Amino acid sequence: MAVQTVTTASASTTTSAASVDLGPATALSCRECGHRVPLGPVFACEECFGPLEIAYDFSSYEAGELRRRIEAGPSNIWRYAPLLPVPADVADKPNLNPGWTKLVKADNLARELGVTGGLYVKDDSGNPTHSFKDRVVAQALEAARAFGFTTLSCSSTGNLAGAVGAAAARAGFRSCVFIPHDLEQGKVVMAAVYGGELVGIDGNYDDVNRFCSELIGDPAGEGWGFVNVNLRPYYGEGSKTLAYEICEQLGWRLPDQLVIPIASGSQFTKIDKGLKELVQLGLVEDKPYKLFGAQAAGCSPVSVAYKAGHDVVRPQKPDTIAKSLAIGNPADGPYVLDIARRTGGAVEDVTDEEVVAGIRLLARTEGVFAETAGGVTVGVTRKLIENGLLDPSLTTVVLNTGDGLKTLDAVADQGLTATIRPSLESFREAGLG
Amino acid sequence: MAVQTVTTASASTTTSAASVDLGPATALSCRECGHRVPLGPVFACEECFGPLEIAYDFSSYEAGELRRRIEAGPSNIWRYAPLLPVPADVADKPNLNPGWTKLVKADNLARELGVTGGLYVKDDSGNPTHSFKDRVVAQALEAARAFGFTTLSCSSTGNLAGAVGAAAARAGFRSCVFIPHDLEQGKVVMAAVYGGELVGIDGNYDDVNRFCSELIGDPAGEGWGFVNVNLRPYYGEGSKTLAYEICEQLGWRLPDQLVIPIASGSQFTKIDKGLKELVQLGLVEDKPYKLFGAQAAGCSPVSVAYKAGHDVVRPQKPDTIAKSLAIGNPADGPYVLDIARRTGGAVEDVTDEEVVAGIRLLARTEGVFAETAGGVTVGVTRKLIENGLLDPSLTTVVLNTGDGLKTLDAVADQGLTATIRPSLESFREAGLG
Repeated sequence: MAVQTVTTASASTTTSAASVDLGPATALSCRECGHRVPLGPVFACEECFGPLEIAYDFSSYEAGELRRRIEAGPSNIWRYAPLLPVPADVADKPNLNPGWTKLVKADNLARELGVTGGLYVKDDSGNPTHSFKDRVVAQALEAARAFGFTTLSCSSTGNLAGAVGAAAARAGFRSCVFIPHDLEQGKVVMAAVYGGELVGIDGNYDDVNRFCSELIGDPAGEGWGFVNVNLRPYYGEGSKTLAYEICEQLGWRLPDQLVIPIASGSQFTKIDKGLKELVQLGLVEDKPYKLFGAQAAGCSPVSVAYKAGHDVVRPQKPDTIAKSLAIGNPADGPYVLDIARRTGGAVEDVTDEEVVAGIRLLARTEGVFAETAGGVTVGVTRKLIENGLLDPSLTTVVLNTGDGLKTLDAVADQGLTATIRPSLESFREAGLG
Repeated sequence: MAVQTVTTASASTTTSAASVDLGPATALSCRECGHRVPLGPVFACEECFGPLEIAYDFSSYEAGELRRRIEAGPSNIWRYAPLLPVPADVADKPNLNPGWTKLVKADNLARELGVTGGLYVKDDSGNPTHSFKDRVVAQALEAARAFGFTTLSCSSTGNLAGAVGAAAARAGFRSCVFIPHDLEQGKVVMAAVYGGELVGIDGNYDDVNRFCSELIGDPAGEGWGFVNVNLRPYYGEGSKTLAYEICEQLGWRLPDQLVIPIASGSQFTKIDKGLKELVQLGLVEDKPYKLFGAQAAGCSPVSVAYKAGHDVVRPQKPDTIAKSLAIGNPADGPYVLDIARRTGGAVEDVTDEEVVAGIRLLARTEGVFAETAGGVTVGVTRKLIENGLLDPSLTTVVLNTGDGLKTLDAVADQGLTATIRPSLESFREAGLG
C-alpha cells in the first residue's frame, strides 16, 4: 500500500496549496465519495481511493460575457482558460498551445454512411504533435509549473511520449519518458528527438506503469510530475476542450450524437463533463445528447461489458492494431458504461479489418488520414448505423484523435496503382488514358 | 515546341474566361514582358515564354475595412480570400482549408542562437497533410473548379502527392498523381491512402515532370488540372498566405528578416509579393525587410550563384537528405537572387550534418519536429548569424515548411537513453536516479 499512501491527498506537495493559482480550480473532489482536498499532485482519495477530479468556482460567470471572452481568445485551448485548471495568464507562458483543431463537415462520408442530419469529424491530428494528447499534456504541464515540478514524465506506448517530450522542451522542463523497450522504431525516434531522457523498460506496458508508480513514491521521483499519474486530475481536464470546441464550432449548440474512442475511458467521461458544464453555464441550450464509445474488437473490455449488461469491466489482454486504444483494464470503464446507458448511447467494437476500412473510408471521402483510433471510430459509426443504434437523421460528431503517419503499417499494403515508362504510349497501355 | 505551344496563353480553356469568377483576379500577366491574357489554365507567356502571374484589382479596398474583414474571417487561408484568386464564397466549398498555422515565439531557440530582437518559427507542419503544400494546392483546386477540370494531378516526390490526393478527395475530384517509382514506402503509402490513382514512373523526377508536360498536350490529359504545371500561376499564390499570416500574427507589422527554404524558389518570390501587397494595401507600415534563402549544400544552385555574384543559376544534380528541396534546376532561381540582393538578404547553404543538427536543435528548444527542410532553415539561420549576414538584434522569422514524421530517417540514429529493468535498483544503476 506504500504507493497508494504517497499518492493520496495526504501526501505533501512541493508547493503549498495556498500559493497555487490554477484559475477557477478550487479543490480536488472525489468522484466516488465527494471528499474534498486542496489542489495538489495527488490523484486518489484518501478516504475511499476513488479518483480525484477538479472542483471549480464558476459562480462569477455571466453567459453572454463569458462567450464573448472565449470568442475573443486565442485560436487554441486557452480560449477556454476560464473553464480550466490554469492561471488566467496561461496563454503568455511557454506551451505548445494545442487545440482549436478543425471540425470537418464530412458531407462525402455522410453520403457513404447514409447520415442525413449532418456529420462532422473532429480532427485532432492537427495538434502540435498530431494527437489529442497535446490537450491533456498542456493541462498537466501548467499543474506541474504550479506545483514547482521541474521534470515532466509519463508512461507511454507512443502518442503521449511525443506530446510530453515536445511540451517539456518548449516549457523548459526536463523530461523523462518511460516506454516498453521494444516499441516500433518510428515512435522511439519521434519521442527521442525532443532531447529528453527516453528510458526503455524491459517489460510490457503494465510493467512500465507499475514502475512509474514506484518511482513516485521514491526520493528519486521528487520534483517529478507524471502527467498521467500524480497529475492525472489536471491532465484529464484537457479532454473537456474537445467538447467545448465541438459545441462552439457548431455555433454554440450541442451535437445530438458523439462517437468517441475508448482507451482508459477518461476522454469519454471528460467530454460528458464538458458538455454538461456548457449547459450549466448557459453557453449552449440544454437538450438530450447520446455518447457512443468505440473500441477495437481485439481490446473491447468496455464494449463486451456494455453488451452483457454488466456494470463492471473484465480486463482483457489486448491484441489489436489500434495500439493507442489498447488498454486492457480501463480505469474509467465503469463510468463509460454508466454515461453511455444514461445518455441513450452505446459501446461497440470493430475488427482490425474494419479499422483499416475505416481509415481508408475517411481518407478517400474527406482527405483526412487518421491513425488506427480514427479507423475505430469511423468503423464503429458505420456499424452503429447498420444495427440501428445511431440515428442517421441526427447531427453526429465522430472523433479522430491521432494521425495516420504514426500508424502507416495499417494501410501499407496499398501502394501504386500502376508503374509505367515515361511515355504516353505506356500510359495508354496501362489503361490510364 | 508542341508542349510549350499548348501551355501558352493561346491555348483554349475548358471554361470561357468570361464565366470565370476568381474574385479579385482579373488576368494573367507575364512577369518578364507584362503581356496580359485572360484567366485560364496556362502558365507561359505566348509572347516571350516568361512565367505568368495573377494580376488583381484591389482598387476598391480600404485598409481599415479590409483588416476588419480579414480578422472576422475563418481560422484558415480563406480569411485572405479578398487577396487571392478565389471566389468570394470559397470558404463554403469543400476544401481542406489549410493555413493559420502557428507562429511560434521561439525564445529558447533565440537564446541558443543569440537572437535578441525576437525570433519566431512559422510552423507549417500544422497544415492538414502537414506541409505548406496544402496552401498552394488549395489555390490550384479552386482554379481547377473554376476552369471545369474534373481531375487533379501533379508530379511529386512526396509532400505534394499527399496534398493533392487529400484535397481531391475532399473536393470530390478524381486525382492522378505521378511519382518516381522508387520513392520511399512511407511517402507512397500516404499518397495512396486517399484512394486516387498513384502512378509510378520508371525514371527520375525529371522524367516524371517531362511526362506530365507531354500529357497536358495530349487528349488524354483533357480536363486535367496539373497543380504545378498548367495551374501554376494560381498554385503559386498560395505561398503569399505565409506572408499575410506572419504579418497579421506579428500584430500587422512586417518582420525585419525572414529565412525561407529554396526549392524551385517560388515560395520565396511569392512571400516577397505578399509582403509588398500588404504595404501597398496599407495593412502594414512600410519599412525595409531582408529575405534570406536557405538550401542544402547537396542541392545549392541558388546559393552557389549568390556567392559567385551570378545572375543566372547553373543546374546541379541533387544529393542531399533534404529531398523536398532537391530541385537542381530551380525555375525561380534568378528571381530569388534578385530579391535577396535587392532586400539586403543573402542565400546560404548547410551540410546534411548541419541539417540534422538543425532538426534536433529546433525539437530540443521548441518542441517542434521539423522535416529536413526545417533543419535547413534553422541551420542556415545559425550560419547567417555566425557569418554576420543576419542581424540578431532584429525581428526574425524562420520557416518550417514540413513535418519530421515524414523524414524520420534523418534522426533515426537517436533512440533510447537507456534500457532498464522495471525496478528502482535498475533505475539507479543506470545513473538516472
